[in-house]
Amino acid sequence: MQRKLKTLPLSKVKIKESFLGSRAKVVRENTIPYQWEALNDLVQDAEPSYAVRNFRIVAGEVEGEYGGRVFQDSDVYKWLEAVGFYLEVHEDPEIEEKADYLIDLIEKAQEPDGYINTYYTLVEPENRWTNLRENHELYCAGHMIEAAVAYYKGTGKRKFLDIACRFADYIHSVFGYEPDKKRGYPGHEEIELALVKLYDVTKNKKYLDLSSYFIEERGKNPHYFDLEAKKRTHSNRNFDNSYYQAHLPVREQETAEGHAVRAVYLYSGITDIAAETGDEELFAVCKRIWKNVLERRMYIHGGIGSIAYGEAFTFDYDLPNDIAYAETCAAIGLVFWASRMLQCEPDREYSDVIERALYNGILSGISLDGTKYFYVNPLEIWPERREKRNDRNRDRQARLQARRQGWWGTACCPPNIARLMGSLGQYIYSYKDNEVYVHLYLDNETEFEINGQNVVISQKTNYPWDENIRLVVQMESELEFTLALRIPGWCRDAKLMVNGKSVDINDKMTRGYALVKRLWKQGDDVTLRLAMPVERIQANPEVRDNVGKVALQRGPVLYCLEEVDHGKNVFDITLPRNAEFSIKYDPDLLGGVSVISTTAYRSEENEWKNTLYKIANNNRKIIDIQAVPYFAWANRAPGEMVVWIKEC
Amino acid sequence: MQRKLKTLPLSKVKIKESFLGSRAKVVRENTIPYQWEALNDLVQDAEPSYAVRNFRIVAGEVEGEYGGRVFQDSDVYKWLEAVGFYLEVHEDPEIEEKADYLIDLIEKAQEPDGYINTYYTLVEPENRWTNLRENHELYCAGHMIEAAVAYYKGTGKRKFLDIACRFADYIHSVFGYEPDKKRGYPGHEEIELALVKLYDVTKNKKYLDLSSYFIEERGKNPHYFDLEAKKRTHSNRNFDNSYYQAHLPVREQETAEGHAVRAVYLYSGITDIAAETGDEELFAVCKRIWKNVLERRMYIHGGIGSIAYGEAFTFDYDLPNDIAYAETCAAIGLVFWASRMLQCEPDREYSDVIERALYNGILSGISLDGTKYFYVNPLEIWPERREKRNDRNRDRQARLQARRQGWWGTACCPPNIARLMGSLGQYIYSYKDNEVYVHLYLDNETEFEINGQNVVISQKTNYPWDENIRLVVQMESELEFTLALRIPGWCRDAKLMVNGKSVDINDKMTRGYALVKRLWKQGDDVTLRLAMPVERIQANPEVRDNVGKVALQRGPVLYCLEEVDHGKNVFDITLPRNAEFSIKYDPDLLGGVSVISTTAYRSEENEWKNTLYKIANNNRKIIDIQAVPYFAWANRAPGEMVVWIKEC
Repeated sequence: MQRKLKTLPLSKVKIKESFLGSRAKVVRENTIPYQWEALNDLVQDAEPSYAVRNFRIVAGEVEGEYGGRVFQDSDVYKWLEAVGFYLEVHEDPEIEEKADYLIDLIEKAQEPDGYINTYYTLVEPENRWTNLRENHELYCAGHMIEAAVAYYKGTGKRKFLDIACRFADYIHSVFGYEPDKKRGYPGHEEIELALVKLYDVTKNKKYLDLSSYFIEERGKNPHYFDLEAKKRTHSNRNFDNSYYQAHLPVREQETAEGHAVRAVYLYSGITDIAAETGDEELFAVCKRIWKNVLERRMYIHGGIGSIAYGEAFTFDYDLPNDIAYAETCAAIGLVFWASRMLQCEPDREYSDVIERALYNGILSGISLDGTKYFYVNPLEIWPERREKRNDRNRDRQARLQARRQGWWGTACCPPNIARLMGSLGQYIYSYKDNEVYVHLYLDNETEFEINGQNVVISQKTNYPWDENIRLVVQMESELEFTLALRIPGWCRDAKLMVNGKSVDINDKMTRGYALVKRLWKQGDDVTLRLAMPVERIQANPEVRDNVGKVALQRGPVLYCLEEVDHGKNVFDITLPRNAEFSIKYDPDLLGGVSVISTTAYRSEENEWKNTLYKIANNNRKIIDIQAVPYFAWANRAPGEMVVWIKEC
Repeated sequence: MQRKLKTLPLSKVKIKESFLGSRAKVVRENTIPYQWEALNDLVQDAEPSYAVRNFRIVAGEVEGEYGGRVFQDSDVYKWLEAVGFYLEVHEDPEIEEKADYLIDLIEKAQEPDGYINTYYTLVEPENRWTNLRENHELYCAGHMIEAAVAYYKGTGKRKFLDIACRFADYIHSVFGYEPDKKRGYPGHEEIELALVKLYDVTKNKKYLDLSSYFIEERGKNPHYFDLEAKKRTHSNRNFDNSYYQAHLPVREQETAEGHAVRAVYLYSGITDIAAETGDEELFAVCKRIWKNVLERRMYIHGGIGSIAYGEAFTFDYDLPNDIAYAETCAAIGLVFWASRMLQCEPDREYSDVIERALYNGILSGISLDGTKYFYVNPLEIWPERREKRNDRNRDRQARLQARRQGWWGTACCPPNIARLMGSLGQYIYSYKDNEVYVHLYLDNETEFEINGQNVVISQKTNYPWDENIRLVVQMESELEFTLALRIPGWCRDAKLMVNGKSVDINDKMTRGYALVKRLWKQGDDVTLRLAMPVERIQANPEVRDNVGKVALQRGPVLYCLEEVDHGKNVFDITLPRNAEFSIKYDPDLLGGVSVISTTAYRSEENEWKNTLYKIANNNRKIIDIQAVPYFAWANRAPGEMVVWIKEC
């Protein structure tokens, strides 16, 4: 087993302003500066973060007590990582200055042995590494390492990378198989994949070995978390070890279990180690857990995690729509993992998931202006149920809301979206010797080195609103290579033209990619037409919550019905099985989206006054409905929303 | 306002063995002896009750520590009440001896001042009346009083009644408006309605006044529960005052709130006080809360309480099917309340609810053999979801199960069913001077005194399986009176014959009753035919969980689909809107029930292997389905069940 494809440095991928590009631009222009304010507790009407303040206290700049959760440092790191990604492509001295200031603070927070964690330094310095299960020290370290790598790549500055290496070296001295080391591993995975990134830039193999150690040791008996817990006087949590994916040694795991974000971060790390070490058995673990997620535990919008309690996977086909957790971070983590799988094994089943999550369950997590966020991304909502049910789970279910928030106590998702959108360029293409894979379709101009020659590929498209994608190849001299074009799983009718001539793709398909191998010349022009009728999508009938319902999808974009378009009770809209749909692009709606229109049924509500149950009379009225892209819901007014529409 | 109708002593109503009668007989023959064993911790494979043992410890018969919840005494009382009801009609020296033994124990547990509560006597004798909100002393007292009244009526023995009066006298000396008394009231209502029963047999008005006091004082400011809580060092609970229906003074309450059993016990007590005192304003409170329940907060099976947390009402139209709480006790309490409303205001809307709950959401609470019980009565269940979701509510949701239990820690429901079925005779008829109301249809022979003359009415029917009900009037001499026959709300076609001649009921209808006034003679024969086609019932579309679904009902009996008849995934059964139903009585199935058969649709599951989402193809196959009465579900094998079936 080897990683078959490579991704490009972000600096090689110039994203233009079509749909996804404009979303990435909003993140750069609005979200990054907004989150600086939020992390510095400067946003009015939003909960304070305390994240920067904690570093300033450690650095002696201000006085005060530690604020926020034990993992608050990670929000600073994720923001820095996003900044690193953007700086790799766009100069921005103002933001860079802020980032450098933060890095100075981080340096000051680093203890002489290399350790950094403002919570432990300020609150319980004597208890370092005593609660790996719950207290996120290694998780924060992982995010610092990822940020440092991105900032080094984005700016060329080594300072942050050196800080990270010192911390990683110290961690390496604490954890491992040697008798004098702790045999622990993190309660929240993240450092595993981060250490592989650090190895990638430093080529220092001990980071790879440490990552491998964390993965292999996980879940073994005697169980570290249990031994550790016995030495403590209290525990914050009652979760069992499956919540931490530590119920079994990693190589014995069969299904996706526990906290969804933890899970996909771990699976990403496992995939990295499998790819770096060529470990087939480890890759087989990834494959079978992937199949479990893809075939039984993933929402149609790419979200994962079915319930608030534990923010967790539950069991096969348990995908409730109203209490869906589908944390934004979990869908992002799924993209991280899918992308790693894709480089190992070029197959549409991975890139389809990347696209599914990106256009739906991730973009839904951020408002159109980039400054409000969803933690939880339900597939339907009846806001009264969330507001009025006095429920034992209310603290966690409170995150399940009908409006996005400016910030909140555990604001893991907002900077996670920022870093994903900042690194969008790495998900569009992969390549190897003489093959270029095109995974995502959006306007960009990208430079490859193929067999020693520079090749520039330009994409021009109004995807996902338009069916046509044009790719133009620019190069100095002729060169034979394969252009592998993803034909999305949602597409029933794809047409390809090269230099204006139709090309039959049926004999070119390999695992969902049309492999166009030819002697390419300067100016060669490829046009791909992916037919985008409105599709009624059904879920496997084992998903009991979706029987008798369809979701509307056009291209990669999932649609929903909102109260703002239909009045109260969008649940009472039923779609005829033979509905005919029309599509219209509305440049003034929701930042410019295509809207689906059709007619549907609704109850004759005036028959029902003061009646709760009565004999069915089959009366119903016909109404016009319009579905809007799910990712854009709750950008006009809060209210009811459904993705899965009843059919009749 | 006055109570317009009276109920009959149980001794006057001889129930025969048609459907409901045979259920009542099972309770007498199986349930009462079984529960004696359970209360004495003699049932293997069931959780111990400790309830009798606590009394035996107090009486010095055994040594040990108090066991069970603070309200464990009430289970003994409810069993004794059921025994009292049955002894009023059937001699049973063996059970009577056991009951007398318990009453001796209760006498020994009575402290010199009259107080009885084994929890406080054994565990915290110094803390009597310090935690009215949570600790159920007055609730247990209420159940003791109800039991004592029933036992006195059933056996003529005064001993238990005297014990109850001594306790009630003591309670009267502790609580009230006088400055030297506590201004408290119970956290769990029950004593209010019990004191009215005690007043009814003793004619001692102070019991009525005390009941009235408890009702009027409830929810006033300064709030007793809050003042009381301040004096304690700890609290078991975090519920707000609406859980206890103490969020507002009773006269200001508009909607049904909080713990559903508490609520309907309170509303029963309020109705009693309104009826006894002629207080129109108080009755108006009952009416408006009744309308709120009937029109917005009641399940189709007569269950109430939408969520496990707080076992509580939530908000209008929030009637989830899978997490429905619908505690058996709550449906029973709804019958208590409806019956009281019905005596004040003869109207089918009350008797329809009695019938709805009785045949569906209450009978479901007990197995066909009378020895297994449901605490919670969901409208659908996917057992895997209950077993595999590791949920924060799991302790309470654990009560939501796919199989009935032999006993459990808070076994309030089993003896509650026993006392309801033991007092079934009081729900069939009401009467006044020269009117006899027939509310329920089942085989019985009942003696009335109308204008000083004895009249015996015999009902002969195989209801609810058969449409025909025959009533024969026996009397010494002719007498004019009105026979008021309930025409159930579910019935679209009722035909009446008197002595073989058709009588048009259309001009005789008053609030759902056909008032047949005539000069009755010996042997007059009334035949009522209530057409019972299978009806597809819809819920108000505001109930978002039921849009696009129908429930099948025939006569008063609600039906469901069970896994045992259809294999896994009964959720994947869709009914055509034009389905044609056939009905067949099967004497060998589930103790003898009518089964509904029809054809329906199911997914082509072999299209779905390893696929979670795909483009809808409208394929489906036609299958035969059979629906069985909901009350009898889970008597064959545990499995999936749905009441609300998708329509297409």
